[in-house]
Amino acid sequence: MTRIAVCAPSTPITREDAQTVVALAAAEFPNLELVFHEQCFAIEGHFAGSDQLRLDALVDCANDPTFDAVWFARGGYGACRIAEPAIARFGHLAGEKAYLGYSDAGYLLGALYRERVGRPIHAPMPGDIRRPGGTAAVRRTLAFLAGDTSGMEPSLGVETHPVVAFNLMTLAMMCGTRVMPGLAGHVIMVEEVSEYLYAVDRLFFHLTAHLGGVAGLRLGRVSDVPENDRPFGADAAEIARYWCERHAIAFLGEADIGHDAENRIVPFG
Amino acid sequence: MTRIAVCAPSTPITREDAQTVVALAAAEFPNLELVFHEQCFAIEGHFAGSDQLRLDALVDCANDPTFDAVWFARGGYGACRIAEPAIARFGHLAGEKAYLGYSDAGYLLGALYRERVGRPIHAPMPGDIRRPGGTAAVRRTLAFLAGDTSGMEPSLGVETHPVVAFNLMTLAMMCGTRVMPGLAGHVIMVEEVSEYLYAVDRLFFHLTAHLGGVAGLRLGRVSDVPENDRPFGADAAEIARYWCERHAIAFLGEADIGHDAENRIVPFG
Repeated sequence: MTRIAVCAPSTPITREDAQTVVALAAAEFPNLELVFHEQCFAIEGHFAGSDQLRLDALVDCANDPTFDAVWFARGGYGACRIAEPAIARFGHLAGEKAYLGYSDAGYLLGALYRERVGRPIHAPMPGDIRRPGGTAAVRRTLAFLAGDTSGMEPSLGVETHPVVAFNLMTLAMMCGTRVMPGLAGHVIMVEEVSEYLYAVDRLFFHLTAHLGGVAGLRLGRVSDVPENDRPFGADAAEIARYWCERHAIAFLGEADIGHDAENRIVPFG
Repeated sequence: MTRIAVCAPSTPITREDAQTVVALAAAEFPNLELVFHEQCFAIEGHFAGSDQLRLDALVDCANDPTFDAVWFARGGYGACRIAEPAIARFGHLAGEKAYLGYSDAGYLLGALYRERVGRPIHAPMPGDIRRPGGTAAVRRTLAFLAGDTSGMEPSLGVETHPVVAFNLMTLAMMCGTRVMPGLAGHVIMVEEVSEYLYAVDRLFFHLTAHLGGVAGLRLGRVSDVPENDRPFGADAAEIARYWCERHAIAFLGEADIGHDAENRIVPFG
């Protein structure tokens, strides 16, 4: 039996969504046990409870010897406020767990990777159950936790470098902070959602200035781009290629990740 | 006679707006001569012409011995793509000029300040003529260029530290890049427009991690905050105070700057 603790370092999910995910796991993955921490349903302003509540729940889950993995409930925003103090309270048992999520949870994945704590994994989250086709996304992470690696990002099969995957905004905001991992020699996958292309260009201006020594960059999907008052003049792949070229970073093409039901799994490292 | 070159390192303005500003200067400031570079009206996708066109126009204006100041036409996005290569082509005469603008033009002000080239000045731009009350904003910069310093940000009168002023997003994106000035010992003023409060919080998470050794931070106006699906739970001043406290940065209160007609003038240094 693999036991998985779910907590919400960013924003809350509903009890209904949690029940749907628990039911899916029970029906299809008898060797998985999902336990949603009560904090997942807390609401305080933007967040799933105060910084202290979210921090305590994350530390509880990470340090609990009866769990094998910690799954982040959903993104939204907020994990950057608690990542550093939370990991400072992680004990020895926290280092033996897998940590799964993406989007805003990337602050935690990155901070864990920096500190060499546990196994950070870019993967769909329980909150994805609300997306069109979201059941397939959630099932992909559950299957991975049950030992089925077929949901992994396809380029990983032939990649010889260590790999990380992040939301573009999340990784850009981590640059130069105390949660930014060293990424020299790595392939960096980034995806984005709901940003104007000029903002994507601006984020690449910033991010690529911080990626000295990386092995290369792959671009996931840049989806739900809002309509601007005029066309930007380049698409997301052209933007990524332009900034990679300015910083002599190898642009390696597409990555099969994104804020969508097709989002594939990328274990860090 | 003070001669002022106007170019557009980011996005274009209209000929009508340029004519309105020229007429205002002619009517009220007989000792100023405004010359709009033809590049101000170029359009290529998002930008006021290609990177090369914008870069060449900026270098033309900066190196022209007949001008005393370079005024950036408006913000929008794009100056970060040309700031570094432009300044590399600036000659001796460029170092004797004032450079005026704000918002996206902050990439240039910051890069100039980093390289100790000329006098960077946060100030309203010709494009502000379109704002409600925009004539007063444009007049403030013209009066400053004509020698009237009454439009300067009020705290400057008693401030003993060097000061800079930036759009929050712009300064956050500069952090760690080759256009970021050293700001140790400085008072940093930041303002923001049209960002969700969670995004303002995220920008402060990032920015304050890069402000080691500054003398303090002042918050300008955070305006046109979009309505989110739920309240954030803290206002912009509380957000700024929180992140300053986490990084032991002195929070010094308000600054009279913003994306509005009241935006005051802040000469860097």
